[in-house]
Amino acid sequence: MTINKQVILKQTPENKPAAEHFSCIEGPMPALADGQVLVRNLWLSIDPYMRSQISGRHMSGGVSPGDVMIGETIAEVVSSKSDKFSVGEKVRCKGGWQQYAAIDAGTVNKVPANVKHLPHLLSILGMPGLTAYAGLIWKAQPKAGDTVVIAAATGAVASSVIQLAKSRGCRVVGIAGGQHKCDFATSVLGADACIDRHQGDLGEQLDKHCPDGIDIYFDLVGCEMLDTCCERLAIGARVILCGLSADYNRTGGAPPAGPSPVYIIKSRATVMGLVVFDYETRRNEFIDACLPLVDAEQLTVKEQVIDGLALAGQGLVDLLAGDAFGKVVVKID
Amino acid sequence: MTINKQVILKQTPENKPAAEHFSCIEGPMPALADGQVLVRNLWLSIDPYMRSQISGRHMSGGVSPGDVMIGETIAEVVSSKSDKFSVGEKVRCKGGWQQYAAIDAGTVNKVPANVKHLPHLLSILGMPGLTAYAGLIWKAQPKAGDTVVIAAATGAVASSVIQLAKSRGCRVVGIAGGQHKCDFATSVLGADACIDRHQGDLGEQLDKHCPDGIDIYFDLVGCEMLDTCCERLAIGARVILCGLSADYNRTGGAPPAGPSPVYIIKSRATVMGLVVFDYETRRNEFIDACLPLVDAEQLTVKEQVIDGLALAGQGLVDLLAGDAFGKVVVKID
Repeated sequence: MTINKQVILKQTPENKPAAEHFSCIEGPMPALADGQVLVRNLWLSIDPYMRSQISGRHMSGGVSPGDVMIGETIAEVVSSKSDKFSVGEKVRCKGGWQQYAAIDAGTVNKVPANVKHLPHLLSILGMPGLTAYAGLIWKAQPKAGDTVVIAAATGAVASSVIQLAKSRGCRVVGIAGGQHKCDFATSVLGADACIDRHQGDLGEQLDKHCPDGIDIYFDLVGCEMLDTCCERLAIGARVILCGLSADYNRTGGAPPAGPSPVYIIKSRATVMGLVVFDYETRRNEFIDACLPLVDAEQLTVKEQVIDGLALAGQGLVDLLAGDAFGKVVVKID
Repeated sequence: MTINKQVILKQTPENKPAAEHFSCIEGPMPALADGQVLVRNLWLSIDPYMRSQISGRHMSGGVSPGDVMIGETIAEVVSSKSDKFSVGEKVRCKGGWQQYAAIDAGTVNKVPANVKHLPHLLSILGMPGLTAYAGLIWKAQPKAGDTVVIAAATGAVASSVIQLAKSRGCRVVGIAGGQHKCDFATSVLGADACIDRHQGDLGEQLDKHCPDGIDIYFDLVGCEMLDTCCERLAIGARVILCGLSADYNRTGGAPPAGPSPVYIIKSRATVMGLVVFDYETRRNEFIDACLPLVDAEQLTVKEQVIDGLALAGQGLVDLLAGDAFGKVVVKID
């Protein structure tokens, strides 16, 4: 076996990424050095932050034309020059958009043996779930009766936020693009209401569903959505900032403005920036808290499975356009 | 004595307030009702938030043309129909821009007997001092070695912030308008550096004086100043929002935008809205902490004393234009 199917960035998109900005090629099998493991990727996570990486401005690093796309994978060790990992072990690593990768063992993570469905380690038991847990539970500290608002409601992070907030006795109002997503947010995820952002005025709908204001706004979007929600904060509100999907296609210039200080002062709000990598040391604590909920089917996520690397670029394009539904993962060929 | 000299708002300013928007008139002596005290005002506080009041949009209430200007005073009880106050007692109350006021006893506050200089009860031991203490000590929680940045450095709030931050072992960088104010901030208040905002690029100067970023930014200004400081936040920074002096002359439209979420996320900052009225219940705790520092001359403030109500309007105009130096108080005729 000498071929390693890979997806490279063909061209940096000027605005919206399209499938033709990516190219699926046949690369060489990586050479294995001492201290490394050779992994066969099984599942690849497709995430919104990849838009910033291909612009070259994400804090985790950039991807230039010709580079193999970066991404987190669940993989199987097929060869090992590290005494930490044995052949056949399942691991979580930055395996990238490719079939095989040789990776320094120090950056490879063992996965809990009792996870029944491996892609969960990329969604509700992975980085998006940790983002939700750290932001909602550790930072925003929800109380029973709080009104929680979150957009991209059927996405990987928001799915966890909605269900975790409900488990703490909060009222949850989602925002999603399309009635079918709203229906899923209320009927499956348990949101008390979900606003279709394509229908009517967002502010008016928030006023209707949050008559006493918003106690917790978990922001993944930025820009107008953030400002509109902050205008409606209740006294003592908490705002979690951890994404700027509305700004991903910007190709230069100043970063987008934030919500008016008037709203933050009036509501005596606390606005907190969140970077999920900071919580790596608490990942086990998060998994211990959430795995029983997953097993009891109290924590679930819709998955959109992409079959094979050739379609991965289109998967990211759809995710960024709001055309994906749930957590996007690629089943590696 | 039947005349009560008063200052009324003559006309709502369209943009910058000027002395002619105010009028000093001879009003009637107020009638005293049961449960009220008649006070003779001794000292009147002139504060930036009065700009919002005369626009009609401050959360504490608005002032319309013809109304007597609102303001906090240190006063003496000259007649009492309340068993809570006796003639001759010194009090703090919303006495307004006038010589005499009849006020419900429930809104009148006794003042500590051991304050040597009464105007201090309107500055470092009053609302501006409480703002500084609540924002810096209770909310931002400074640690030794933190870099603290504050603008309007010789103003009433910032004077306290600088000295309190120094007392906690912080490095303090002030921002002020003019070299004479900067000199005062460093030589008298003890700031480690003070940037003249009229000279050179603010961002470049902040980079020079805060090479490791800003740990605490205490904002009274908003707009560009806020954005420029937030662009330079250190990891784990705290930002206190409690004023918008750069926006006081706005006469309509949307409130000004805030700093980019990009800065808040990158620095994992916590941004907190502060309304000083929330801390009324902790005022004694604040005075107990600060009075010894005042007596030891470790906490001081420059005072700009305006002699008589006829000049009070000009005093507010100068304060808002950045032409005042220190805490502005009116010695009532």
